[in-house]
Formats: sequence, structure tokens, C-alpha cells
Amino acid sequence: MDRLYAIAHSSTLSQFSYHCQAACPHTHARAGIFHTPHGFVETPRFMPVGTLANVKTVTPAQLKDTGAQMVLANTYHLHLQPGEDVVKRAGGVHRFMGWSQPMLTDSGGFQVFSLSEMRSLSDEGVTFRSPRDGQLIHLTPERSIQIQNALGADVIMAFDECPPPGVGREATEKATQRTYDWLKRCMAAHTRSDQALFGIVQGGEFLDLRSQAVRMLSELDLPGYAIGGVSVGEAPDVIDRVVQATAPLMPHHKPRYLMGVGTYREMARAIAAGIDLFDCVIPTRLARHGAALVRGERWNLKNAKFREDFTPIDETCSCYTCQTFSRAYVSHLLRSQELLGYTLLSIHNITELVAFTQRIRTAIFNGTFHQDFAPWLAPIAPSTSF
Amino acid sequence: MDRLYAIAHSSTLSQFSYHCQAACPHTHARAGIFHTPHGFVETPRFMPVGTLANVKTVTPAQLKDTGAQMVLANTYHLHLQPGEDVVKRAGGVHRFMGWSQPMLTDSGGFQVFSLSEMRSLSDEGVTFRSPRDGQLIHLTPERSIQIQNALGADVIMAFDECPPPGVGREATEKATQRTYDWLKRCMAAHTRSDQALFGIVQGGEFLDLRSQAVRMLSELDLPGYAIGGVSVGEAPDVIDRVVQATAPLMPHHKPRYLMGVGTYREMARAIAAGIDLFDCVIPTRLARHGAALVRGERWNLKNAKFREDFTPIDETCSCYTCQTFSRAYVSHLLRSQELLGYTLLSIHNITELVAFTQRIRTAIFNGTFHQDFAPWLAPIAPSTSF
Ligand SMILES: [Zn+2]
Ligand SMILES: [Zn+2]
Repeated sequence: MDRLYAIAHSSTLSQFSYHCQAACPHTHARAGIFHTPHGFVETPRFMPVGTLANVKTVTPAQLKDTGAQMVLANTYHLHLQPGEDVVKRAGGVHRFMGWSQPMLTDSGGFQVFSLSEMRSLSDEGVTFRSPRDGQLIHLTPERSIQIQNALGADVIMAFDECPPPGVGREATEKATQRTYDWLKRCMAAHTRSDQALFGIVQGGEFLDLRSQAVRMLSELDLPGYAIGGVSVGEAPDVIDRVVQATAPLMPHHKPRYLMGVGTYREMARAIAAGIDLFDCVIPTRLARHGAALVRGERWNLKNAKFREDFTPIDETCSCYTCQTFSRAYVSHLLRSQELLGYTLLSIHNITELVAFTQRIRTAIFNGTFHQDFAPWLAPIAPSTSF
Repeated sequence: MDRLYAIAHSSTLSQFSYHCQAACPHTHARAGIFHTPHGFVETPRFMPVGTLANVKTVTPAQLKDTGAQMVLANTYHLHLQPGEDVVKRAGGVHRFMGWSQPMLTDSGGFQVFSLSEMRSLSDEGVTFRSPRDGQLIHLTPERSIQIQNALGADVIMAFDECPPPGVGREATEKATQRTYDWLKRCMAAHTRSDQALFGIVQGGEFLDLRSQAVRMLSELDLPGYAIGGVSVGEAPDVIDRVVQATAPLMPHHKPRYLMGVGTYREMARAIAAGIDLFDCVIPTRLARHGAALVRGERWNLKNAKFREDFTPIDETCSCYTCQTFSRAYVSHLLRSQELLGYTLLSIHNITELVAFTQRIRTAIFNGTFHQDFAPWLAPIAPSTSF
């Protein structure tokens, strides 16, 4: 590469860069560092979800202590409440929610397709009814980027079509092509150099459509890429098959993000395929149901056996909850429907999933990922649950 | 006093002592320090309520940062869930809930009389139906102390009869006498020298009954005294009249605690009458209703005017909420029914009431309490609200 061009190119992207720090000799797994204007993210890493500009029941100070380095917020939800203009006037989503480390916003597409009463879908965009006041909202690639530019996260996502699983090859092919066309419109609409626009690889369960999408997107030289459309209802083995085939094809010198996935096995296998970033609402959602994630298991802490169990949820866990409270205490809070129970479990569950990816990262550095995480790397059978 | 006796006496009470550090020259107000086995409490001071061994939505770490030095828990609630035996086996209520500073438990009497379906009341004790499983529970002075000994708070309260207001002189007189008899049974039942048993001055709205109760209780030389039965439905001016007449009569070298009171004006006037300690659920209860306490006012943060107000709730407040977030953000959380909003408001409201009593403490040291807090010291008219 011409040196002058290299400098100019690197200057354009100076606020974002991904460096691979260590690669697993047995799998596609890699440990890396992703630099953003709000600091770095050590990958692989789980990202908690702060849908409405807060990770449910957890303060930013508590969140920082979980080891989470990057947090996701949902464009769809923030557009509806409080509205991106309010967030912008607050100084952006970081300042609004008191989180000074890296952030990512999704495009809103997934929520429009999964949560809202959709009225029309065309090449132009989608129209849906606001669940808040019933008004019709028109969302296009340009509008999604405008909103995300106003929110101001470090990473913003291209607006994509997310067809439900099982729509067949023809519909999937059409949605994948449309997602590509929309991506180019997103790139044209994007105005902020301090935000990195990631492209999303679609293609449903069709591996050739996925690999074709990777090829086309790679040529656009975006600062990062995601695999989308895998958390819309497919069976885990279908998701796994897509990830195993697609991730290794994605550009090596860019961060790779698997959207909506955050279970132990799915993350471990996806990391083995070369994925760097994950997000999932599962740690906070499980907390609201009284469930603790403990080394790969889910425990219902309302269970009678925890009533007088005065040990920490996980004695090897470094989180505030495990360092301070017993299973019996958290169980008591949950039985009493005290909201603090959800906070304490959310802190633990997020810490646990971040630590899981951090342990994998360490194992990749040590060259022991393949052995140390072998139980998690076994193929995912069609019947496998969490 | 004989020197040898003085030493023996002080040794018996060595874990508890109250020292007056400064006295207001214009009122009965005093700044003092109350030593307990879990550290000291600087008085006057507001104590937040942790009914079920947690201050709702607030972690002990957050609570410590509010400046709260002593926390109350409710014997009645903890007896029902998880049961005092569980708390005892956990190592006591401090360890159970992760709070290492001073604690106080009430006797359960107030809740039995106000919350439960009471079945019988006699000189022996009360029988009520458990709201949890409908079983009949018998509570006596001895049983209340047993439970509180098991819970292990630094300060425990005598089991008292709390008649509703307006029962008339005869019934009040009888309840006051019974409370006195029960107190002596509490003293006999109390087994732990690392817990201080406080007596409760009853007497309803009848000032002569109150002063007679103070005289009788003073002779028992307890490590602290409370004014009870003032938060059972009386008008603020009635409470105030009782406090103004009763507090100055209470032993000077012992901490004085006004139960269930925690509004600005009532606290300021009670401090002027010589009260040291307060407790009230108001900061967390208001938080759940979206209300912030700001220098004597209550603000509904869901109000439209806060939607784009990017200033802190109170720019003079040192709490985590005010140091980190805007009114607009808290308003957004409340509109979105995000539980984090209750946490942030609870942190602020507790900090605000603790700081109010701390400012009074400083003013007492400076000799300016009477002037600085004059607006709060105006007599309470029958119609005055919070
Ligand atoms: Zn933990
Ligand atoms: Zn504050």
C-alpha cells in the first residue's frame, strides 16, 4: 500500500481501529482490541443491553464494575421515548445515561420487524404504528442513521430488513439484496466521523447467501461487520451453522459482532468461528425471573434449597453481589419481591457473562482456548437448550 | 457517684454511650455522638428504613454514600419473611443484609397494631393472623425481644401497645400503663449486652400521661428512649405539641428517638425540642411515586417541565444521582417505568433528608441553628402539610 494513502486512510479511521492481539492455533478465535472515541473494548466480549439508555436496575457505576466495556442501546425504543432530540440536547447518549465508555446503537430494524404493528414495507423503508401513541412512523435507512447520529453512540448499525425465519429462499434473497441497498444509503446518510457504521450480514439460513453478502459488504470497507438475523426465532443449531460458516469469511482486520446472542455455548462456538462481540438481554431478563447464571447453569434462587444457603451465589465470582451477599439473602429479596433482588442478580449475571468471554480471551492468549473450553465447543444439537 | 460503681456501670454499658457535643443556646437542640458496637452515629440524624433487611432499591454501598449512619429494619416483617432464625444463622441482620454500620429494629408492635388482623389483645400480649399464611401468631414482650435478640441489631425497641388516636384518655392511660409493664418484661427477657434496649414513651395526645411515662421510664436507666405513638394518624400539630412538651423532659445523657417522623419541618422542630434520631419510609416511598425531595419541596419528576431539563435534581446535592444524572434523565426513566429511576430517586431523597439533619447538626455546632433554620421552626398550624 502506498505510504501516503495509508496515512490518509488511517487518519480517516483514526478514532476506530481493531488489532488482533492473539489468535487461537486450533480455531478461528482471536483476542483483540477495538478502539473507539470513548475508549477501548477488549474482545471477545459480551455487551449488556441498555434498551432505554439504562441497563435495567443497574447504575453505570455498578455496570462498570461488572467488567462490561461496551453497552448497547436501542434506537427504536429511544426514538419513541424520550426521542433522539432530547438525547442529543442532553449531549448524546453517553452523557444522558452517565456511561463514559464505548456504546453501540442498533438500527431499529429488528424491533420494527419484531415488535411493532408494521403497516408497509418497500424499498423506500417501513411504516409502523407507534406503540406509544398509535401514530404512524416512517423509518428509512436515512432516518435510522439520522436518529443514530443524534444519539451519538460510538458504533451505529446499518438499517436492515429482518425477515422472520422460514420465509424461504426467494424472500430471504430479496431481503438480503434490500439490506445491501439500504446499507449504501446508510453510508451516504452517515455524517459523523466519530461514529463507526457497521454493516450487517443477512442471508437467513442460506449459507451461500450469507457468504455472498459477506463478499459484497467487505468491498465497502466498513469499520466493522455484524451477523444479523440470527436471533429472530431460529433454532440454536441453525444459528450455529450460519455463524460457523459465515464468521471466518468476514474481514479479519475489523471487529465482528454477532447480534442478539449471549448464551455460554453459542458465544463459545461463535468465538471459535472468529466472532468478537455479543449482546443479549438475557442477564437482566433472567434476573427479573429470579434466575442466576452460574458457570453455565441457571439457578432459580427462589428455590427452597437456597433459603438457608449462606454461601455466595458463586464463590469464584468477583462481583459486588457475590462479594457481599449470600444466596439466602438474594433468595429472601426475591421471595419478598424486593426490587433490590433484581439489581443484585443483574449485577451478578452481567459479570458472569462478561467474565465468561474474558476467560475465553485469556485462554486465547494462553493458547489453551481449544482445550479449556472444549465442553462449550461441542457441536450444538437441534435439541440443545441454553 | 462512687468511683468504683461508676467504672463498673460504664463497663456494663461500654458498648453504648451518648455524648452531647454541642448545645443550642436558644432551643433544646443538641449535637451529639451515639456509640454502638457497629460504630457511631452523629446526631441529630435521619435513619432510612430497611423494612425487609434492605432499603428498597438501594444497595448497602449506595446507602453508605448517602451519609446514613444507622438503618432501621422491621421485626414484624422479618419475623414473617425470612424468619429471625434464618437471619440469626446468617450471622445477624448486619451480615445478612451487608450493612456493617449501626442498626435498629423496632419491636413489631406498631405493625401488629396497624397492619395485621388482630385477634386478641391482653396483658399477656397480642395474637394476630399472619398475612403470609393466615396462621395465628402470638406476640408478647418476651417474644419480641427474643426475635430482636436473634436479629441482632445494635438498638432494639421495647414492645409497646400503640392504640389508634382518638381512643380517649382512659384507653390511652391503660395502654401507657401496659406499655410500662411490658417494658419491664422486655428488660427481663433481654439477654444480649451488645444490644441496647430503648424504652418507648407513650401517652397519646395527653401531655401529663407523656410526662408521667417519661418519669417512670427514666428511673429504669435505659441506654436510650423513644417517643412512640406519634405516627399512627395524628395531625402534625398534635404530634408537634406532644414532642415539644415531652422531648425536653427525657434523660439528657441518653439518645432520644422520635419514631416514624421524617419530614423537614417535623424533624427541625423536634430537634429544637431535643430529639436526636428519626426514621421514616418517606424518601423511598416518594421515590416510587416519582417524587424528589428538594430543599423542602416535593417535585414530581414526571412533570413535562423536566423532560428537557438537563440540570441535576439539586445542584447543591452531593449524591450519586445529582453528581451523575439530569432531571431529564430521571424523568425519562420514570416515564419509561424503568426501575433504575426509583433507585436514583431513593438515593437522592435519602441523601437529602440525612443532609438536612447533618446541616442542622453543623448549625448547632456553629450556634446558628435558631437563625439558620428559622423558616422550619415556625409553629406547625393544624393545616400544615409536608
Ligand atoms: Zn457474582
Ligand atoms: Zn441528590
